[in-house]
Amino acid sequence: MTAEIICVGTELLLGDIVNTNAQFLSRELAELGITVLHQQVVGDNPARLRAIVEEAKQRSDLLVFSGGLGPTADDLTKETVAEVFGDPLHFDETEWDKIVAFFARTGRTPSENNRKQAMVPARGHKLPNDHGTAPGAWFEDGPHAAALLPGVPREMKAMWTEQVRPLLQKRQNCTIHSMTLRVLGGESSIAAKAAPLFESENPTAAIYCKTGESEIRVTARAATEAGAEALCAEHVARFRAVLGDNAYDVDVPGLAYTVVRLLKERGLHVTTAESCTGGLVAEKLTDVPGASEVFGFGFVTYAETAKSRLLGVDPALIERCNVVSGPVAVAMARGALAASGADLAIGITGLAGPGGALPGKPVGTVYLAGADARTGQARLVRLAIGGYQERSVIRARAALYALDMIRRMTLGLAPDGGVVLDPGQDVPEL
Amino acid sequence: MTAEIICVGTELLLGDIVNTNAQFLSRELAELGITVLHQQVVGDNPARLRAIVEEAKQRSDLLVFSGGLGPTADDLTKETVAEVFGDPLHFDETEWDKIVAFFARTGRTPSENNRKQAMVPARGHKLPNDHGTAPGAWFEDGPHAAALLPGVPREMKAMWTEQVRPLLQKRQNCTIHSMTLRVLGGESSIAAKAAPLFESENPTAAIYCKTGESEIRVTARAATEAGAEALCAEHVARFRAVLGDNAYDVDVPGLAYTVVRLLKERGLHVTTAESCTGGLVAEKLTDVPGASEVFGFGFVTYAETAKSRLLGVDPALIERCNVVSGPVAVAMARGALAASGADLAIGITGLAGPGGALPGKPVGTVYLAGADARTGQARLVRLAIGGYQERSVIRARAALYALDMIRRMTLGLAPDGGVVLDPGQDVPEL
Repeated sequence: MTAEIICVGTELLLGDIVNTNAQFLSRELAELGITVLHQQVVGDNPARLRAIVEEAKQRSDLLVFSGGLGPTADDLTKETVAEVFGDPLHFDETEWDKIVAFFARTGRTPSENNRKQAMVPARGHKLPNDHGTAPGAWFEDGPHAAALLPGVPREMKAMWTEQVRPLLQKRQNCTIHSMTLRVLGGESSIAAKAAPLFESENPTAAIYCKTGESEIRVTARAATEAGAEALCAEHVARFRAVLGDNAYDVDVPGLAYTVVRLLKERGLHVTTAESCTGGLVAEKLTDVPGASEVFGFGFVTYAETAKSRLLGVDPALIERCNVVSGPVAVAMARGALAASGADLAIGITGLAGPGGALPGKPVGTVYLAGADARTGQARLVRLAIGGYQERSVIRARAALYALDMIRRMTLGLAPDGGVVLDPGQDVPEL
Repeated sequence: MTAEIICVGTELLLGDIVNTNAQFLSRELAELGITVLHQQVVGDNPARLRAIVEEAKQRSDLLVFSGGLGPTADDLTKETVAEVFGDPLHFDETEWDKIVAFFARTGRTPSENNRKQAMVPARGHKLPNDHGTAPGAWFEDGPHAAALLPGVPREMKAMWTEQVRPLLQKRQNCTIHSMTLRVLGGESSIAAKAAPLFESENPTAAIYCKTGESEIRVTARAATEAGAEALCAEHVARFRAVLGDNAYDVDVPGLAYTVVRLLKERGLHVTTAESCTGGLVAEKLTDVPGASEVFGFGFVTYAETAKSRLLGVDPALIERCNVVSGPVAVAMARGALAASGADLAIGITGLAGPGGALPGKPVGTVYLAGADARTGQARLVRLAIGGYQERSVIRARAALYALDMIRRMTLGLAPDGGVVLDPGQDVPEL
């Protein structure tokens, strides 16, 4: 089956918003095994819209529209598609009652214009919208079909997932399941290790690059949901076998979620002592609902006096080793443990730039330490986060490494580089 | 002049990436006074591409392409446009030398395929690419023109700004200047106050909604750069006159930048005591280069014991008023001043959800306090951040309000709601 996506909206043509709907629909269609030949964005000129719909219908089996379902006279997508598909619209009392009720909830009454939103296909069918006023529509004409969805991404995605996707699964005679494996590290290092796994046709695997990590989306088609899920799980296991510890979780929004879950499962508390990341690690941890069970104290010790006063770092140590150094990072982590009573701590000091480079320590040099109250041990790593990276990227990568250090300490995994220090052992400069 | 945008790339049709190029080009063209009628994304099928280019050329004066300039046999955009515009390509030795040198820098040699990247229009001209290997191209045929740019956003944007935009400015016979005014508050409240200013045709003004604030982009056309800039500045002044204190700065990345600049200008230090925002305010402040001049200590007091131990909040007060209360927020801010020696402090305690609602205090209830060491005064406001907002949105909005409270204390502006408390005055529950 071939498809094309037609987004209707002046705000897209003016560049007021970025077209995330086209990406979402393209990815979903690809997962269904439907080839997307063409994406378009058009305005509300009726003659031009009609020409485009006619051409697209000749070219492709399925047309997916988003936008153009509003109440104003300019919104003519549904009327135009109805004409091209030769399917008249009729007034639907149930939809009209829903629109009236929707307005009533916010103390308003619909205008005469809103009546056109209650018009639905006679031969095709409506796609009810439980998330807004305008229902969508489904048209068919021989082998050709069209799905009309609203432009608001939240409404469009919900209606797609609840109504259009199942309909297409039935047409494609299959069920689909996806899983997203999250992996620390860049696309090229992952591709080098797992190249053959990306060649698979069912399940498919696609990689999406994020700051300091990547998402691998695995999608399987099968006759049943359980079958598709099993295929996915097997392929994810193959990736895990190749990628090892760096593959940290499946279907989570990010590493902080994994860290909070792991700490919760083990009844552990973590604390943070941050200089160059300025609260970013604490912010990521507390963005996870329920973080209060595992995180109580965070120290943003941006000034040297803050490191001494809040964490008890010896000013003489800062004087001797420089504030951006391994010994200071370790003293910050150990000081945070003492000041908070937590089980685990991280300490971060570094140069996020753009200014402030030191001899032998360019911008992007970050010392990251972990301390474990259960063993008295500490970990220390010196990061060199590329010389051409922006301040915000340096901070984001340092925070991600810090979360990974917490994860590794929680799971008892070996550190990803650097040294492990016993209690009382001298801290190297690195 | 009318234009359309044609992006070539399978990764867009598969939904692997979102089409930010189309948004960038649309916005730029709108600012040049060029009407964008149509955006398209197409793959690398030669027959289909040719049909699309022919149709687009009939329909519009200017075609802007991104992508399809790669070295492989599939990349046929330049060849196709050359045919449709009747302008043969010829081999350009200078471009070839640049490609060879580019490869040499990374220790590689170009393949025979790369030679097609050195083909440039005979009648039109090349658009040199100083940021990658593939040069772009400019074609003309009577009133019709086409600009071909690479698909990599960084290269595309640089070539657009340095080469295509000046060319179009000359064609449009004008110079363009833009300014972005940042305003606290949502689009509808701003539109209600400043509606007539958005009707202006030169300068134009467009509003872009962000979390808790909006950007107003003002763009003026004039014969000279100085003239365009003056027109912009006048229109921005009109917006400021209507919007008052909420219009906080021009051409800055965000409120934290304004706050850091204002504190620096006055030689003041600020500190943060955060519960529900979990370090987000500290993170925003320290994301600004040079923040260390104005920020030294940040406290993430997520647990009740942290509030008592680090900020000296009386446990009996927490017991009596609840931890999410005005008196606790004020005690946090005052405690942070004492613990850090800063001039200004903010204290934040609230319910970010999804669970944890209290009787009379739904999720989204946030108490925000400010303390000023210079006067001993405090400010307190109770925020109700909509019941349907996500945790991350509640936190982001609370952090934005907190930054605005610092701004208002720094400038000596009245608070945006809430109460002002003298030293020793009882703190109301609100």
